Amino acid sequence: MRLAHLGPPGTFGEAAALRVAPGATLVPCPSHAAVAAAVEGGDADAGVVAIENSLNGSVAETLDILIHETSLQIQAEVVLPIEHNLVGCPGTRLEEITVVYSHPQALGQCRRFVERSFPKAQLEAALSTAEAVTLALRRHGDAAAIATVRAAELHGAALLARAIQDADNNVTRFVVLGRGRPRPTGRDRTSIAFTFAEDRPGSLASVLDEFAARGINCTKIESRPTRAVFGEYVFLVDFEGHAEEPAGAAVLAAIRPLCAEVKVFGSYPRWHANAEA
Amino acid sequence: MRLAHLGPPGTFGEAAALRVAPGATLVPCPSHAAVAAAVEGGDADAGVVAIENSLNGSVAETLDILIHETSLQIQAEVVLPIEHNLVGCPGTRLEEITVVYSHPQALGQCRRFVERSFPKAQLEAALSTAEAVTLALRRHGDAAAIATVRAAELHGAALLARAIQDADNNVTRFVVLGRGRPRPTGRDRTSIAFTFAEDRPGSLASVLDEFAARGINCTKIESRPTRAVFGEYVFLVDFEGHAEEPAGAAVLAAIRPLCAEVKVFGSYPRWHANAEA
Repeated sequence: MRLAHLGPPGTFGEAAALRVAPGATLVPCPSHAAVAAAVEGGDADAGVVAIENSLNGSVAETLDILIHETSLQIQAEVVLPIEHNLVGCPGTRLEEITVVYSHPQALGQCRRFVERSFPKAQLEAALSTAEAVTLALRRHGDAAAIATVRAAELHGAALLARAIQDADNNVTRFVVLGRGRPRPTGRDRTSIAFTFAEDRPGSLASVLDEFAARGINCTKIESRPTRAVFGEYVFLVDFEGHAEEPAGAAVLAAIRPLCAEVKVFGSYPRWHANAEA
Repeated sequence: MRLAHLGPPGTFGEAAALRVAPGATLVPCPSHAAVAAAVEGGDADAGVVAIENSLNGSVAETLDILIHETSLQIQAEVVLPIEHNLVGCPGTRLEEITVVYSHPQALGQCRRFVERSFPKAQLEAALSTAEAVTLALRRHGDAAAIATVRAAELHGAALLARAIQDADNNVTRFVVLGRGRPRPTGRDRTSIAFTFAEDRPGSLASVLDEFAARGINCTKIESRPTRAVFGEYVFLVDFEGHAEEPAGAAVLAAIRPLCAEVKVFGSYPRWHANAEA
């Protein structure tokens, strides 16, 4: 199986792909759009994209692909804890570190650790946490990077400090995009998007009432501005259940007449931390 | 008036602050949290923070400050088009550019322009679009930065190409945080957050029904995972109207018994593109 993911190797995108299918041939891509394109063009059998982070919220690029650009379906989800680590040349002494490299988002998520540990260090941006390791290793013992354990291993860097992120509830939800239609398992989630013909009080409430009337729990709701006009919205809902089960099929049938458009991104097994990948 | 904003000078945070109060004394801060802290600590009279971008969605850091950390109220909003420009040393020739610097998000938003114009150029990350200008100017004529017009002016750089972003509907909504309570103007927006004691089908629908019953239009809705447990949610709603007007006051009174907690972030005039700041 060829599995596309946001690269380069050593990033969280690769970690998610390895968790989904440890034996897969990995196809690193430069953007989430390129991951979807790789699957659509036949260069990969499936693709892993980040969809939501507990600190940063939804990944807009992925939502826009699902809303506007692809007919691929979500096959599965995987939730990964995001652990940031301090890595550098083997033998680096913490007191000699004067420069810390990482992606700005990772630098932001480790701000308190860095300020406490290296109050005088210069922060330098990198395009990815993996590139940060390369940049740190080019210097000799006075630099460190914030990156994954695997990025350190891939580049022969040493782990100087583990789990340095400020918040310990930093997890990212990834979804697997492909052409399949997973069968109901009894513990599924369905992701949909819908729009209304006009922006009118009560439209959204009328849709949510259909879920409530069937006792269906919505696990996520979000309005996103459409690309056309800031202020007109696409609504995104995740609900518990499968579109091919009676309750899921009934609620979808009930809301279609209320909406201008309904798009089903997929029904797929809910992630359980202890599930086998 | 001292107005705090996300710095450094030449970034979009400064542009929003200048739009809010052109004559203000600006107080650049290193993070959105620092903007709120500057206002709370008395170092600034008000602070401008980004809350939503049309391409990237909500700014999670700002939402978390409003939800968890501050009792400041939203005083006003401002919507700014995000224009990215190519800037460099005066006299730089486009065909000699081999390196392009910017914040990874700006690089991503200009990906197609850069690939088309500089297919062989190396992309280099910066901590901000303003820092990118400094990095590009350190080289001599073979580098460019993606940044604001003002960043170019502040650093004595030349504008090499204007409005190079791939999407032309890239706008950011900023809000002004302060201690005031703006009076109703007849065209206001109110932003609130609420939680439920238990995760039960129909809870959210019951709240939205109260808005629908009063003909109140909700202009935004979003569920955000609480910090405590991934999968438990805070709901964020923007609605048209003012919390001190009869309809706004009535809907807030009606939903409080349905929720575990309701927090009003503020009622403030809706932005009009032609309004005077």
